[in-house]
Amino acid sequence: MAVKNYRLKIAYDGTRLFGWERQPGKDTVQGKLENVLSRMTGTEIEVTGAGRTDAGVHARAMVANVHMDAKGMDCDEIRDYLNRYLSDDIAVNSVDECSDRFHARYNAKSRSYLYTIFDGPVKPVFNRKYYLRLDSALDVSLMQEAAECLLGEHDFKSFCGNPKMKKSTVRNIERLDIRRSKGYVYINIKGSGFLQHMVRIIVGTLIEVGYKKIEPAKVQAILEAKDRSLAGPTAEAKGLTFMSAEY
Amino acid sequence: MAVKNYRLKIAYDGTRLFGWERQPGKDTVQGKLENVLSRMTGTEIEVTGAGRTDAGVHARAMVANVHMDAKGMDCDEIRDYLNRYLSDDIAVNSVDECSDRFHARYNAKSRSYLYTIFDGPVKPVFNRKYYLRLDSALDVSLMQEAAECLLGEHDFKSFCGNPKMKKSTVRNIERLDIRRSKGYVYINIKGSGFLQHMVRIIVGTLIEVGYKKIEPAKVQAILEAKDRSLAGPTAEAKGLTFMSAEY
Repeated sequence: MAVKNYRLKIAYDGTRLFGWERQPGKDTVQGKLENVLSRMTGTEIEVTGAGRTDAGVHARAMVANVHMDAKGMDCDEIRDYLNRYLSDDIAVNSVDECSDRFHARYNAKSRSYLYTIFDGPVKPVFNRKYYLRLDSALDVSLMQEAAECLLGEHDFKSFCGNPKMKKSTVRNIERLDIRRSKGYVYINIKGSGFLQHMVRIIVGTLIEVGYKKIEPAKVQAILEAKDRSLAGPTAEAKGLTFMSAEY
Repeated sequence: MAVKNYRLKIAYDGTRLFGWERQPGKDTVQGKLENVLSRMTGTEIEVTGAGRTDAGVHARAMVANVHMDAKGMDCDEIRDYLNRYLSDDIAVNSVDECSDRFHARYNAKSRSYLYTIFDGPVKPVFNRKYYLRLDSALDVSLMQEAAECLLGEHDFKSFCGNPKMKKSTVRNIERLDIRRSKGYVYINIKGSGFLQHMVRIIVGTLIEVGYKKIEPAKVQAILEAKDRSLAGPTAEAKGLTFMSAEY
């Protein structure tokens, strides 16, 4: 018996998935990983992820860890086994042995997300599942101005999708930048952690700013009000990609 | 009445399409373009394409032309009208007025295709509809060696998918290069024109070479035999993308 702790990096196209977290009868990333690893090891397996992405959200490099006895398989064999049995929209890019104490969720210092918007005249075809399509151009400089006040540690209750959240809604945003490249607008956000729908509500609010429905200076007031109803709508899941977790 | 000739550049994800050519009751690129333009102009419209891609084949910039009275709409308005009514897997990137005599098929001096293979250990997720997945690594240098003899003007009957082809099977390949980049193998092919399935049969044959099932020198003999049964299988449509037509 050699139970070791393994770190996995996982990419997935969230289009047809019900998010990260295991749910009975639904295709989720955690659920599928656990099923394949349980079959592989012959025991019940629990996989811990750095973040719990919503249904429809994608990931380039979700980090997870799992304690298991791999029955003599080495890391690449585990990776290949997983990729053989996982569906085409999930790929395990790497499997490494890690310290017994490594915990993908608790040890993550930060998570980075990318939200992709296309607001140009002709919708790109090949990556169409991975961006939000908007019909008219956003004013990115207004969005950048509005984003300033969200940087740093704040109570993000106004940007929390769970009205019954009992734990602290204080989070720290280390980076929030908005960049235009041709018809695309890329919103990169990095923080200590994110509340439910927080990235998407921030994006939805910044889109309202980019369309001059909310003044940039108003975002500070929205933040301070701690009232979800004042922020913008939750932007569609399809534009959101979990990029990395930093340890 | 102002009938003008318009040149269109069209991108499409061929996954769910039955190829370029109009077919009753099936979703094809020509059929969809003609339907939308017929509705727009109120007359029957015929669209001419530079190439007739098979079901499942993609295009980055298919060139087409269409003679029509656009009822006072300018080129960008035509483009936007098309994109509003076309399905998400087809995008008209540009519409320009062109000479009355411009014919997208007859005037094309050459067509360029890209065939994309992934033979690395971990299948990429996000572009998975656009490459052929192979389980073990190809020997690209053998494929390059084999490709040499296909360059130039030859009778490509051995690489023609239509056994009843009555017209000339002579074509001219100007470029055929095979390049590895990490886990991908890219096959670029440019020629005066291509017979039915010709690119895919060439790729299928080169894959056999890359797996040492066919010796590179044997490809010359296959070409000379003018016998389809000697060449490799027709490679899957999903890896093939029409890149451009040159005039």
